[in-house]
Amino acid sequence: MKIARFVTKDAAPRFGVLDDTDLVVLRGDPLFDGYETTGERVPITAVRLLAPVIPRSKIVCVGRNYAAHAAEKGNEVPDHPLLFLKPNTAVIGPGDAIRIPPFAGTVELEAELALVIGRTTRRLPADRWREAVFGFTVANDVSSRTLQRDDRQWARAKGMDTFCPLGPVVETDLDAEDVTVSSQVNGEPAQHGSTRDLIFRLGTLVETISDAFTLLPGDVILTGTPAGVRPITPGDVVTCTVSGIGSLVNPVVARD
Amino acid sequence: MKIARFVTKDAAPRFGVLDDTDLVVLRGDPLFDGYETTGERVPITAVRLLAPVIPRSKIVCVGRNYAAHAAEKGNEVPDHPLLFLKPNTAVIGPGDAIRIPPFAGTVELEAELALVIGRTTRRLPADRWREAVFGFTVANDVSSRTLQRDDRQWARAKGMDTFCPLGPVVETDLDAEDVTVSSQVNGEPAQHGSTRDLIFRLGTLVETISDAFTLLPGDVILTGTPAGVRPITPGDVVTCTVSGIGSLVNPVVARD
Repeated sequence: MKIARFVTKDAAPRFGVLDDTDLVVLRGDPLFDGYETTGERVPITAVRLLAPVIPRSKIVCVGRNYAAHAAEKGNEVPDHPLLFLKPNTAVIGPGDAIRIPPFAGTVELEAELALVIGRTTRRLPADRWREAVFGFTVANDVSSRTLQRDDRQWARAKGMDTFCPLGPVVETDLDAEDVTVSSQVNGEPAQHGSTRDLIFRLGTLVETISDAFTLLPGDVILTGTPAGVRPITPGDVVTCTVSGIGSLVNPVVARD
Repeated sequence: MKIARFVTKDAAPRFGVLDDTDLVVLRGDPLFDGYETTGERVPITAVRLLAPVIPRSKIVCVGRNYAAHAAEKGNEVPDHPLLFLKPNTAVIGPGDAIRIPPFAGTVELEAELALVIGRTTRRLPADRWREAVFGFTVANDVSSRTLQRDDRQWARAKGMDTFCPLGPVVETDLDAEDVTVSSQVNGEPAQHGSTRDLIFRLGTLVETISDAFTLLPGDVILTGTPAGVRPITPGDVVTCTVSGIGSLVNPVVARD
């Protein structure tokens, strides 16, 4: 099932379940309120999609989780998951602009599979990871390489406003350990990989993360990015795709 | 004015303004709802204080912002504010236990002045920093030195559950650029410093942070810690004090 968060003109954000080319409108946020429908159907062409989830608490990200990406950046593969945080103010939705400030220097895209947490989760064993997850979406872990190097801590480099596009939908049914993660810049292929090649698998990530941080419904985990990252600059259009979920497309603009 | 968030038995959390030894109970959260009172007064001895604010979005922290603390750890003074994030799930209140997991290794306390953001703030010039601030509280930036070293990124080292005690109250009227920041472990003096000695002053912090991240009401900024940090271990009682605000006391326990 694919769940979208959307607006139609003048209305507050709502949620809907994709049925062919329509959204079946839900009464509330399915993460908290279940799947009761209003009876209304809206053509997907008549809505503007929003980020399908706004984390109430945190976005936990994993660095260097594909060996080929670690190698292309000259980094060693870590011996345990390399965790960092993005704030919820970094989240934008499909079609929203990635806004690059002048001090960001070189900025690159990073397509990733993202987990959307469905329930309060502490110290969940790896083999039960699926219990924590409501669904899956596509993320772009936009990263200033200049600030990663200069700041050392990655809060600014990866957490600035607009540096966490999410969408286009949350897919609740996915064989997430065997999906393709890829990206394009202006239609040219950039990244390509498979979650079969994750160094730390989804269970290990949920176990490690939930041993440090209580996960709350709506929290998001970005699982790492495959090789092929490249710079993005104002005027570009960036597409991140996970097979079985869809494509997340964002233009890039300069911010003053 | 000193604002507390508190519970009395069986009731939901409420807010009150300290008047001598009583709390004058407010109808809502003064950050969003103003200062209308219910007419009720509760003796402060009859309540349990909670963290005075739970950030809706983020806790932005500043590393190495007192020269003497950078020196005691063998670090150079940065040329711009060193920023990192803690999640809201790390927040605990006065009297709550700091829970140290077995993998945390050496853990230290860090007493800090914290700013509580009062309004949505983007790119505020340094000389207008006070406009962003609702009030001030005391924070303990609890830090696993072992994980700081091993993880490199500080998300786990400083963001684990219970690693951000806040309180005891929010003080709205404070000459925050001239207060004493100190700590004690089991009554023995540990840290001592003054915000007069901040490398990056409060205006610079608000300007730099709000240029990267949109600040939302309830967000918290931890402004850095003075020299004198020391290890804390289960059984200790840790006190962090900022003159004009109060003392934040937390026991330390082991977590399995």
